Formats: sequence, structure tokens, C-alpha cells
Amino acid sequence: MSEWLTDAGGAGFAHTYKVMEELYRGRSDFQEIRVIVNQDFGRMLVLDNAVQTTERDEFIYHEMLAHVALLTHPSPRAVLIIGGGDGGLLEETLKHTIERAVMVEIDQEVVNVTRRFLPVIPGRAFDDTRTGLVIGDGIQFLKETHDTFDVVLVDSTDPKGPAVGLFSAPFYRDAARVTGRNGVIAVQSGSPLYQQDLIRSVRANLREAYRHVDTFFATIPTYPGGLWSFTIGSQWVDPRDLNDQSNAVKTREFGLQFYTPEIHRGAFELPPFLARELHIED
Amino acid sequence: MSEWLTDAGGAGFAHTYKVMEELYRGRSDFQEIRVIVNQDFGRMLVLDNAVQTTERDEFIYHEMLAHVALLTHPSPRAVLIIGGGDGGLLEETLKHTIERAVMVEIDQEVVNVTRRFLPVIPGRAFDDTRTGLVIGDGIQFLKETHDTFDVVLVDSTDPKGPAVGLFSAPFYRDAARVTGRNGVIAVQSGSPLYQQDLIRSVRANLREAYRHVDTFFATIPTYPGGLWSFTIGSQWVDPRDLNDQSNAVKTREFGLQFYTPEIHRGAFELPPFLARELHIED
Repeated sequence: MSEWLTDAGGAGFAHTYKVMEELYRGRSDFQEIRVIVNQDFGRMLVLDNAVQTTERDEFIYHEMLAHVALLTHPSPRAVLIIGGGDGGLLEETLKHTIERAVMVEIDQEVVNVTRRFLPVIPGRAFDDTRTGLVIGDGIQFLKETHDTFDVVLVDSTDPKGPAVGLFSAPFYRDAARVTGRNGVIAVQSGSPLYQQDLIRSVRANLREAYRHVDTFFATIPTYPGGLWSFTIGSQWVDPRDLNDQSNAVKTREFGLQFYTPEIHRGAFELPPFLARELHIED
Repeated sequence: MSEWLTDAGGAGFAHTYKVMEELYRGRSDFQEIRVIVNQDFGRMLVLDNAVQTTERDEFIYHEMLAHVALLTHPSPRAVLIIGGGDGGLLEETLKHTIERAVMVEIDQEVVNVTRRFLPVIPGRAFDDTRTGLVIGDGIQFLKETHDTFDVVLVDSTDPKGPAVGLFSAPFYRDAARVTGRNGVIAVQSGSPLYQQDLIRSVRANLREAYRHVDTFFATIPTYPGGLWSFTIGSQWVDPRDLNDQSNAVKTREFGLQFYTPEIHRGAFELPPFLARELHIED
């Protein structure tokens, strides 16, 4: 009988994947890293038993986190990515005509393992001349940097261990300092089904630093429960206000698989049960 | 160690639920029926090991299947439900000012078990004077009936055993015969991730009988992969054309938890990868 990998959602609910092959298993200073092969989702990156990304569905998460934010900013030139060691978010970011993308990832091993076993996810992003890779603590980096950025994207694991501070008000205030008056931040904010406290707290914390704060949703088949949330903060442009036509042209040129301006718009539409449970008034 | 129920999606992918308690397990003439209790999703109805509906997320599936179709028809008065033995779809249907709802369910036991162990799903729908419950084969019923209906809703299991015919062109032609010139049909059409052939065939078969055929999506956390498809056929009104204002008033009065006119509109927005994989041109 073959091994199955089980990725827990709630206490009594999990997704489970048949492990056809294990390409890598190792322990870094921060976490256990695995790359397995599954017949439905292809190669899968697993950190501490939680599926982070897969060949088959990675584009949904990465496109939604990158493009909703980058198309909300009127003219992004410098982008800071916190986390995102698999490079998928970096690849989407570099599709825009930006000048530089700095990625601060705490775990060098995640970058190494991805480049070796999941090269399709970053593509050539790590070799792009606009890319700067910093191995270090994103919270510390943001506190100390004298650089400015137009957009900050936070591609973190769940709020455990070193990731906890990435969901805090001081971190978002530091982000607001470096992103300036048109600044935009977008973060993954967890499951609307079993991390509602997290979403509420991300929203409250972001509101201390950004003028427009809004939560949007996408279905990520390999995240437990399927439905996933992202929260965006923007100082100037309301993320629901889109120039559809210009964005449609841009995103067609990008050759995207999930994001369209219509999906951007629809992602902010809250079903009443979530509005109520997340205490969001539309 | 407690039992976990495993509901397979693809060959190497499943959702799994801790069984806190089993309230019922029996075998009808058609299938094994179980009702279990899970801490995340409450009471769950399971047919032949596939989760059909749960207390916690049933409203998503039932509201989307019912209201997208019933608000596409200009003035539905008579509705035919094929399958749907748990009564959740019937309950949503009866929120409209219709004259009658006939439900044809093949398995009396599903109705009995639901009424006993999951009464919250049908609510008082089975006792409504507008309801007619027929225990029998929906395919046969539609072929032989002399009644007319405005809307047909098909809430079926996967296309196995007696459900196969519910996805066929002859069945949809019979539906078109009874629904007439403003007629609308909506069916659950499976997972966009691992039942793409099914969706393509449902669309092709429906096109033989209905003028507008369109597929829409919702996230059902307890259906493997999360993302789920429904396909609608309409003779007159394009299901994407909505009178938002009148529908917003109606659906607010219904006290819905998932459906809004904006979600209706967004549900038809296809990500490019699905448009390509399902051979749908927008």
C-alpha cells in the first residue's frame, strides 16, 4: 500500500494525496521540506506537512495574489515580496513592466529545493536581472530598509513560528512606510472556513496602516476547504475600481491562466454568510 | 483511533473527514446511505462513500442550483426537481412564489433518512402544500409526463448507475419538451478538475435542446477539489442577463447565505485555463 500525505484543514477535515514518488525530503533550520509527485496535481511542495503549491494549480494562488495588487497600483515600479520561496509569485510579478522585484525569503532551502525539483514554478524568475533575492527575516528587512517600494506582496505560510509577525499591525505599518502614498499591499489571509479569526485580525491590523482594506477570494483546490482568502490594502486606488479595458489588454499579453479583470471584480463579491461571519459590511 | 471517511476526487486525491459519530448506516435498493457527524461540517449525508451534502455547507450548492435557474426564468410557476432527495433544493425552490414543485427522487430511503437525521436541510419543504413528491425514475417520469414545467432542476449523484441517463441528450430533449418556450434547466455537471469530459458532454447534449447553454461555478468545500460546475440551458433569457435590482430585492427577502446577483454574475466568469480545458469560447 502506498503512502498518502494528509494536509489538515479543520480538526476533523483534511485533504489527502497519494504519494507516487518522493523526490526530496529534508529538514532546514525552519521546517521540513518535501517534494512529492501526485497523479492529479503533479509535483507538490510540502512544508511541515502543509501543501504550499503544486504544478497543477499553483497559478491560481500566484496570479491572484500578484495581479490584483499590481493592477490596483497605478504604476508599480518596485515590488517587495516577503516569503514566496518557490518563486511563483516572483514570476507573476515580473510579467509587469517593473524595474525591480526584491524577494525576502527566510529559508534558502525552499529556494534551492524549488529550483531543483519544481523549476516550472519560478520559470526563469530567479535569473531575471530585475530580481534581488535576500535570504533573511522579512519582518526585520521591512523594519530596517531605507528602500521604497510601490507594492508589497506577502506570500507566507500559516501564522505559526516565524510567520506570526507577518500578520501583525507593526509589520503592516512598516509596509505602509515603505510603500508611500499610492502604496498597495496584498497578503494571503487564510481559509474563510476555519481561519476566520485570522482574516478579521488581518483586516483590523491592515486598517491601521492602509486606507482601503478589502478581502477577496479564490478557489485553490489543494488548500483545505478549497475557498481561500487574500486581503489587500491600498492608500489611493480602491482595488474594486478597475480600468477593465487596459487591464484586459495587459493580462491577455501576460498569457494568464486564471486572472481576468472580470475574475478580479468577482473575487471581491462576498456571499452573505462570509460577510456575516467575517463581520464585513459590503 | 477514530474512523475517517474518505471521499475520492481524482485517483490520487481525496477529502477525508473524522467520523465523530455515525447516526445511520443502511443499504437501500440503490445505494449505501450513511449519516455521520463531523466537527467541521456537522451532520453529513454520504451515498456510496461520496459526500452529498452537509449541514455546514449545503446552502452553497442548493442556492446556486436553484436561484440561478429560477431567476433566469422570467416567471416560474411550476418546477420539476429530479433527484435531490435531501430536500435542500426543494427548500430553496419554494422560496419563490411558485405554484407547485414536483420532486422525483428514485430512492425513498434518502428522503426518509434525511427527514429523520438532517431535518434542517429540507426545513418544512416536504410539508409544503405546493410540494409533490414522486418516488420513481426521473428519466421515465420526464419521458411520460403530460405536465408542463417552467424550470427543471437536476440534483443528481455522479454519472454512475441509474444517474447516467440524467446527463444524456434524450433526457434533455424530454426536459425541453415539458419546459416550453421560456424553459430553463439547470444541472450539477461535476468537477472542472477531474470531470471535464462530463462537463463537455453535458454542454454538447444540452445544446441539442436549449438555445442558451452556459456553465457556472461555485466553491463547495466538501466536494473534492472545492471548485464545482453547474450547467444551465435556457430557451429565451440569457442566464447572464439579470435584472440586478429586482433580483437583489427578491433574494434579500429570501434570507440567502450564498447567492447574490453579483455572485450569480461572477459565477459565469471563466478563468482562461477552464475555458481552454472545457473548450468554451467566451
